[in-house]
Amino acid sequence: MSILVVGTVAFDSIETPFGSAERVLGGSASYFAVAASFFSPVKIVGVIGQDFPQEYLTIFSGRGVDLEGLRREKGETFHWRGRYHEDLNVRDTVELHLNVLSGFVPHLPESYRDAEYVFLGNIDPDMQMEVLRQLRRMRLVACDTMDHWILNSGVALRKVLRKIETLVINDSEARLLSGEHNIVRAARAILKMGPKVVLIKRGEYGVLQFSDSSIFGTPAYPLEEVFDPTGAGDSFAGGFMGYLARSGDHSERGLRRSIVYGSVVASFTVEDFGLKRLTRLSLGEVEERYQRFLALTDFHT
Amino acid sequence: MSILVVGTVAFDSIETPFGSAERVLGGSASYFAVAASFFSPVKIVGVIGQDFPQEYLTIFSGRGVDLEGLRREKGETFHWRGRYHEDLNVRDTVELHLNVLSGFVPHLPESYRDAEYVFLGNIDPDMQMEVLRQLRRMRLVACDTMDHWILNSGVALRKVLRKIETLVINDSEARLLSGEHNIVRAARAILKMGPKVVLIKRGEYGVLQFSDSSIFGTPAYPLEEVFDPTGAGDSFAGGFMGYLARSGDHSERGLRRSIVYGSVVASFTVEDFGLKRLTRLSLGEVEERYQRFLALTDFHT
Repeated sequence: MSILVVGTVAFDSIETPFGSAERVLGGSASYFAVAASFFSPVKIVGVIGQDFPQEYLTIFSGRGVDLEGLRREKGETFHWRGRYHEDLNVRDTVELHLNVLSGFVPHLPESYRDAEYVFLGNIDPDMQMEVLRQLRRMRLVACDTMDHWILNSGVALRKVLRKIETLVINDSEARLLSGEHNIVRAARAILKMGPKVVLIKRGEYGVLQFSDSSIFGTPAYPLEEVFDPTGAGDSFAGGFMGYLARSGDHSERGLRRSIVYGSVVASFTVEDFGLKRLTRLSLGEVEERYQRFLALTDFHT
Repeated sequence: MSILVVGTVAFDSIETPFGSAERVLGGSASYFAVAASFFSPVKIVGVIGQDFPQEYLTIFSGRGVDLEGLRREKGETFHWRGRYHEDLNVRDTVELHLNVLSGFVPHLPESYRDAEYVFLGNIDPDMQMEVLRQLRRMRLVACDTMDHWILNSGVALRKVLRKIETLVINDSEARLLSGEHNIVRAARAILKMGPKVVLIKRGEYGVLQFSDSSIFGTPAYPLEEVFDPTGAGDSFAGGFMGYLARSGDHSERGLRRSIVYGSVVASFTVEDFGLKRLTRLSLGEVEERYQRFLALTDFHT
């Protein structure tokens, strides 16, 4: 089952304690698409500028990602520059140039409008809603957001939350959105805003899934080398949705397995800068790490 | 199988965003002993002052804890005053009065010297070593420590580490002890110092266990109400050692189950101030939450 993702396709300039990378392929839709492509076909909705190189398009097409909905506009591609602290959980945005992203209105090709699995990446909630309006038969819609939209587009974001199935959000954003410091209370408050499932991303500490009937918790896969955490959250969402769409199993068990596959893919993402690790990743490596993940967390069998 | 614990028995004065408590029973040995007592008999080695009330001794004896090794000295009991931030992972020590603890030399009653399970709570490494010297047939020795000893008694601490089986330590202390920021590297470096097993406590994010042959990770039990994190780490260690001593199963599977029992007991500790929740806890509640913990983390079965 194919997945539609709307989000940013960007140039990322990244500095970590271990090195730096200039204008590498980044953005929420990019990480999501490449991650999800290990399990399901992906269609991207987004915008790039005239400076976007063919080489980066090849990364998508090499993964079989459908680019019909990726519009090229006059101007420059969205560019983010960030710097990570020694504690890789902390980062500063040094520069942010929206460029062609400002004023972008998503327009879905006809071939996209029957998508059943949809991921609304971290962009303006009005754009997320516009995508939903153009879809005819969604089966599962997941959504991400960030502090900027929570603080500045709260009304639009609340409308989106009433339309979606699953919110994927990090812990500090969950606190901000709910006004609750305790993460269990925060998740319960967000469930009342519309989503049936809330996935709380906690970076190196793993993921918590909340629904009305259950909670699932898993650590992240422990890594000796983390080079660049950029895109880990979107890779997680991509692996999660990709596996979910492939299996079609929306039961609690199916959701949990999808979460672990998402965690596995994200654990590869952070092993190198940008999308470098994912572009040389094989499904065999994913499956092997999933088995290790089972062994890592098992006290049940 | 009974467990010997050496550590502090203290008055704790605690302030959290949810309230405060004055001079309640605290200290590493106290939390450990009460937690472990749900599974195994416990013997305490420690020191109290003349001001230590009978009422607090009754808390120990009510849990069947052997107090022969708890010496009463002239002077006042060790007193710690701490304040937690809204983020309960952060706390400040406001006052610290060693009182009778300064100059304390542990002297084990004859009936203690055959203890096979030993927990060296967070005290001066020289005192920890002195306890080890008086023991004749240890089967499993676990140890805790803190930044103060890592920074100021490094040589003595390294000697202790060469004698023990299991180090129980929180993540920031593991980084400090190893000089490695990445937690997997930190644990690997600590394994080279002597312990066969390193348990990294990550507070609300759970626990990681490292040995040469495997890694185990588990989240913490998610709670809607956390009133007071004091003693969570020592309760974890107590539940862990208590269950391990009861089962006698030192296999990877036995260790993992013990870790989860430790996490369960710690999750009760933080639900009320000081030892209040543990003193009204039943083994039935522990078993019920263990089952919930299985359900929380299961994607294996």
